[in-house]
Amino acid sequence: MLVKGFKAAAVEAGFKYKNRLDLGIITADAPVAWAGVFTQSVCRAAPVIWSSAMAAKGRGRAFLANAGQANAQTGPAGTKDCYRSAAALATLLSCPATEIMLASTGVIGQPINISILEAKLPNLLSQLRPDGLNDFAQAILTTDTRPKIRTEKIKLNGHTVSIWGCAKGSGMIAPNLATMLGFLITDAEIKAPLLRNILVEGAEMSFNRVTIDGDTSTNDSLMIMASGAAGMNPADSGEALAKFKEASFTVMKNLAYQITRDGEGATRLITIRMRGAKNTEEAKLAARTVAESPLVKTAFFGGDANWGRLIMALGRSGATFDPYAIDIDLDDIPWVRQGQDNNKEKAASMVMKKTEYGLLINLNAGNGEYEMLTCDFSPKYIAINASYRS
Amino acid sequence: MLVKGFKAAAVEAGFKYKNRLDLGIITADAPVAWAGVFTQSVCRAAPVIWSSAMAAKGRGRAFLANAGQANAQTGPAGTKDCYRSAAALATLLSCPATEIMLASTGVIGQPINISILEAKLPNLLSQLRPDGLNDFAQAILTTDTRPKIRTEKIKLNGHTVSIWGCAKGSGMIAPNLATMLGFLITDAEIKAPLLRNILVEGAEMSFNRVTIDGDTSTNDSLMIMASGAAGMNPADSGEALAKFKEASFTVMKNLAYQITRDGEGATRLITIRMRGAKNTEEAKLAARTVAESPLVKTAFFGGDANWGRLIMALGRSGATFDPYAIDIDLDDIPWVRQGQDNNKEKAASMVMKKTEYGLLINLNAGNGEYEMLTCDFSPKYIAINASYRS
Repeated sequence: MLVKGFKAAAVEAGFKYKNRLDLGIITADAPVAWAGVFTQSVCRAAPVIWSSAMAAKGRGRAFLANAGQANAQTGPAGTKDCYRSAAALATLLSCPATEIMLASTGVIGQPINISILEAKLPNLLSQLRPDGLNDFAQAILTTDTRPKIRTEKIKLNGHTVSIWGCAKGSGMIAPNLATMLGFLITDAEIKAPLLRNILVEGAEMSFNRVTIDGDTSTNDSLMIMASGAAGMNPADSGEALAKFKEASFTVMKNLAYQITRDGEGATRLITIRMRGAKNTEEAKLAARTVAESPLVKTAFFGGDANWGRLIMALGRSGATFDPYAIDIDLDDIPWVRQGQDNNKEKAASMVMKKTEYGLLINLNAGNGEYEMLTCDFSPKYIAINASYRS
Repeated sequence: MLVKGFKAAAVEAGFKYKNRLDLGIITADAPVAWAGVFTQSVCRAAPVIWSSAMAAKGRGRAFLANAGQANAQTGPAGTKDCYRSAAALATLLSCPATEIMLASTGVIGQPINISILEAKLPNLLSQLRPDGLNDFAQAILTTDTRPKIRTEKIKLNGHTVSIWGCAKGSGMIAPNLATMLGFLITDAEIKAPLLRNILVEGAEMSFNRVTIDGDTSTNDSLMIMASGAAGMNPADSGEALAKFKEASFTVMKNLAYQITRDGEGATRLITIRMRGAKNTEEAKLAARTVAESPLVKTAFFGGDANWGRLIMALGRSGATFDPYAIDIDLDDIPWVRQGQDNNKEKAASMVMKKTEYGLLINLNAGNGEYEMLTCDFSPKYIAINASYRS
């Protein structure tokens, strides 16, 4: 895949893992419009603090990402390491350090090995090429089992425009922000403040609606650069903007889907559609409580058609409703009607053996709606996380 | 154990499990002061609705409890089953049905087999005896691996007074209310409104502070009866009340401890002491987020001294603090200082191999304090809950 105006590359720096790409870069051929949105954690990693300040400037040249160490809770030394990384790269790219956004993923409390990083940079830059994006997508992974990539192509004012995105996810995924790391590039021409709005709105419809374990990271970052290199195609208003937004949202939603599908130890993906809540806020509370409940998620894993677990989660969610007004559909099975069993156990059990299905829960208390993606809790989730560091 | 003025018994009704006690009763020899507190779920089970109405009357004769079916989300039929249970027992005890509190635990959405229950009642009553309390404690269990019982004896105005309590827990344990079912009896003499206050205050310090999986049941109930049969010992005021409260709290706290110790699949028990939060509310948010985080709980299981998981949970908890002011002690190990690693990995790893230890987290942002008990997430939790119904 090529996106005009960008090059990418990745190398094996050996930060934590051996024999795999773990240091990646995407560069724009010249300074371009960019934006970023970041974790809402009180404990923001050093690269998050760095990048959110740089994103605000609206223009830049490169994303640099490493996997293995999070550079979070690393104090003044971590801040200094960010500055050193950006400065070293900026020297090699002949641009100001402020034109570089950084992202790290890995173990919290561990610094990145800045000497290795600096030593690897020339080699990394020597490999920059227009079709290096797959390598970049590979280099940002930790416990992910596969890279997550999505591309959309649209026609804007007669020019073909591409939007490419990649993400890493796995554990520690939850609203807000659900992706550990997400990167988008496009050769559309669009201004930075609009890019930021698109990230905020898109994240709310995608990454913020997936949950694997309810935990949110210190490092969650979502970034975008727009080169405008696909030809004169200003996407700043009207139909062009609408088309661009829609395609960007498709990329983000698909990446969020892939993240959930690849949740740590996940064996099933479940879409939860909450309807008829008193308002949107209560729909969100109800959907999120169901999506994060360990008892619900273990029933998903077991394929146990036990709707009582859903009732339990809804009942404690904080949403207000009449327990005997709840209707629940499992795919097209009318599973629960007016809060009670509808004698569909056998059919429901069949659905719950599938690797992907949907729950439509109507609280019949109003017009509030919300939708979330979740996955099951398997013994593998625990195996992965009981010893993630080692 | 004997508590003056009470008898208890249990039988094998075969509601769900075979060859085990699953229907239990405690009766007072005459109507006595009583009180109850119940789940805050919007979806309250039929016996919860029944018993909370009866508790409000302040006086009664008996607790009747079954394990196997929750009689929750069972609609008008479930309500009728409660009335039939209470009426049948009342006839046999020659008292009004309003003098009976009911409690059920088991699968949500399943009715109790009321015909079996009615048929078993005469046999149950024929076995009532002062030392039947252990059988009662056994009959209320579901996935618990052992009964939870605690007794305190105190001297009030020269008389020895007993407070006996039992509980069932395991999964679906969380604030509020943390016990699936808890029952207390005492031969102290104390009025119903005071009993209720003691339950409310005691639950806040005990059952509401334990968490196994963050899930709260439709059936959580905590009940107490006070016979006054230990002699003239009014515990309604002054030092006697203070002593009685203290002993009651000891019973409740110990039962909550036993519930967490016996959490589904739990291999370790961890006390989380949050200190230095901006206020109590933030201390509670921070403590609860740490206690319920799947990533923290899997690290507990693995014995992985990964303090970054705690930082992650604190950061997303909603509490406000300076990330570089956090101090964390693991038992007596100064594990994290000013938000950073304190080079105690080896000592910390030793502590985390233990089956019981404590975390002292100081946010250094104010005077808010809160304490919780939690346990680890093990693969066994998932195995139990993937197929609990079958």
